[in-house]
Amino acid sequence: MAMLFLSTPARLPVWKPMFDDAGETLIAGEAAVTDPAEVTAIACWTPPADMSRYPNLRVVLSVGAGVDHLPSMPPGVALARTLAPGIEAMVRDWVVMATLMLHRDMPQYLEQGRAELWQSHPVPLASGRRVGIMGMGRIGTLVAHSLSALGFQMAGLSRAAHPADVQTFTPASMDAFLARSDLLICLLPLTAETRGILGARTFAALPRGAGLIHAGRGPHLDLQAMRASLDNGQLGSAMLDVTDPEPLPRDHWLWRDPRVILTPHVAAQTDATEGARHALAVMRALHSGAPLPGLVDQAKGY
Amino acid sequence: MAMLFLSTPARLPVWKPMFDDAGETLIAGEAAVTDPAEVTAIACWTPPADMSRYPNLRVVLSVGAGVDHLPSMPPGVALARTLAPGIEAMVRDWVVMATLMLHRDMPQYLEQGRAELWQSHPVPLASGRRVGIMGMGRIGTLVAHSLSALGFQMAGLSRAAHPADVQTFTPASMDAFLARSDLLICLLPLTAETRGILGARTFAALPRGAGLIHAGRGPHLDLQAMRASLDNGQLGSAMLDVTDPEPLPRDHWLWRDPRVILTPHVAAQTDATEGARHALAVMRALHSGAPLPGLVDQAKGY
Ligand SMILES: NC(=O)c1ccc[n+]([C@@H]2O[C@H](COP(=O)([O-])OP(=O)(O)OC[C@H]3O[C@@H](n4cnc5c(N)ncnc54)[C@H](OP(=O)(O)O)[C@@H]3O)[C@@H](O)[C@H]2O)c1
Ligand SMILES: NC(=O)c1ccc[n+]([C@@H]2O[C@H](COP(=O)([O-])OP(=O)(O)OC[C@H]3O[C@@H](n4cnc5c(N)ncnc54)[C@H](OP(=O)(O)O)[C@@H]3O)[C@@H](O)[C@H]2O)c1
Repeated sequence: MAMLFLSTPARLPVWKPMFDDAGETLIAGEAAVTDPAEVTAIACWTPPADMSRYPNLRVVLSVGAGVDHLPSMPPGVALARTLAPGIEAMVRDWVVMATLMLHRDMPQYLEQGRAELWQSHPVPLASGRRVGIMGMGRIGTLVAHSLSALGFQMAGLSRAAHPADVQTFTPASMDAFLARSDLLICLLPLTAETRGILGARTFAALPRGAGLIHAGRGPHLDLQAMRASLDNGQLGSAMLDVTDPEPLPRDHWLWRDPRVILTPHVAAQTDATEGARHALAVMRALHSGAPLPGLVDQAKGY
Repeated sequence: MAMLFLSTPARLPVWKPMFDDAGETLIAGEAAVTDPAEVTAIACWTPPADMSRYPNLRVVLSVGAGVDHLPSMPPGVALARTLAPGIEAMVRDWVVMATLMLHRDMPQYLEQGRAELWQSHPVPLASGRRVGIMGMGRIGTLVAHSLSALGFQMAGLSRAAHPADVQTFTPASMDAFLARSDLLICLLPLTAETRGILGARTFAALPRGAGLIHAGRGPHLDLQAMRASLDNGQLGSAMLDVTDPEPLPRDHWLWRDPRVILTPHVAAQTDATEGARHALAVMRALHSGAPLPGLVDQAKGY
């Protein structure tokens, strides 16, 4: 049993000694594979084009939090994603920052700054602001707790109803969820159902002047619909960590719209040590037959 | 007994009915005073030039959180400031936002955005960042709790040692406090001792590349020293809600420095209802002889 490592080479000096210490085999790159039958797991962002080369392959592990970029797996091959407390905390921090930035009118104050204009506007209390989180998974739940502690009125959206200390809506009650979301946060996985979900219909159901905070995936968001909603005042401002396409090309209108603040997909990065730790947990589960940590439901897509 | 109201006229429609309901007298403006002997309290941002006109004056209440803008009081006149949970929560929210913005390199990402450049940099974990709060008073303590909950390594500075769940330093150990503060937050009151405290000596004692978050008062900060420290790399970036002077004039270099983000003194605004509630508590204390809420130690200056 061996794991084939196809992730960023810079991470290898961290992964290799950890695998050695644990007595696990890590093969760095396809060129280094001498016996393809040995490979039972592949850690990668992009998997090899031809996975049939590895007859005993049992799991493909995404080194990031999402799996939407991966092709469908050959029969019998499981899909897992990296679970790392660091990733979740990083995204949480970015979302808390972005929520506060829209709550406290940073797009407007930044624009005034460029105009060298000192002018204050009414300061809102967090307790008067209703925030809605689309995607109450690992990260959404963390965000809900942090923003609750600051006094925001929180609600969440997930597929199944969850027993939780924050009010949770399901797709059947999505309009009610949107109608109460002054600030809308997207932390959904990208699936067939969620692609384009941040579009005209969703924006129209929000309170007028709502803010959008997006840390999911670029294709969740219909940029033209967002622009139209910003132009007609239905949306007030937006903060995006993800766009479609990425990287966003120079000369794209998004760079120049003062109502939108962008970061270049940096809500989180997988820490090499945490990634290797998760990969080792996957190897241990393969040996023992225990459930794979971070196992993805390939039918649901997350 | 009456309170003379010299604050923003816009607040009067909130204060007046609350005073009426409580059976207290509120006199709106000096011109409305018929019997100066009746005035026992003055609520104001700026007090009347001649307070000797009011022989029974016992307290001047600042309608804001600070009292540094007030002249010294005539003998026998107490000084109080408005305590309002809303003010404290608002400043806390601004400071949490500003800390996350420097922690997550927003000055750099905003500058890249203006250059239409999509480029990521290593993402830091909050748990690896040491944050120091100068001024562990009502607001500083709130901020420490919120940032601790996000995983930052917190410490505080106050005059007296406090038993607290965050490590607290005193002026005698200020260098040790500064040496461990990757991000330095100022939430001090402005006093003779703290004027100019954010200056060359303080910046030199920080870890190289530290960030400065300032929500105290403009004159705490020596802007020329900050500029020199930014230029030589000792400071990495700064986020300021207060400047000296205010409003910051057009053409000031601060507006154009990409390492600095400014907001126009909007960390908090006193909510009219909360302000009136505190003013009524002051009147009740005057009647009963109880300690004045928000009483300021005029010798210490806060
Ligand atoms: N920007 C970045 O750097 C970055 C970094 C990491 C992650 N992310 C994004 O964040 C996403 C969430 O991560 P996570 O670890 O929190 O995921 P997760 O634990 O799998 O949670 C996903 C949540 O979305 C809900 N959901 C899925 N499809 C839905 C639908 N059609 N309608 C309503 N709710 C739906 C799920 O509902 P149930 O609970 O009912 O299943 C679940 O609550 C990732 O997929 C990725 O896109 C971005
Ligand atoms: N930007 C805004 O919109 C805004 C709004 C509200 C307030 N503020 C600022 O925030 C400040 C703090 O407010 P607060 O309500 O938290 O004040 P506070 O409760 O009076 O606390 C002041 C803290 O500063 C400490 N301190 C005073 N002098 C010091 C010195 N020389 N060296 C070290 N520590 C010293 C005090 O130490 P001890 O505990 O030992 O006494 C105390 O911990 C206000 O004075 C105001 O300047 C700004």
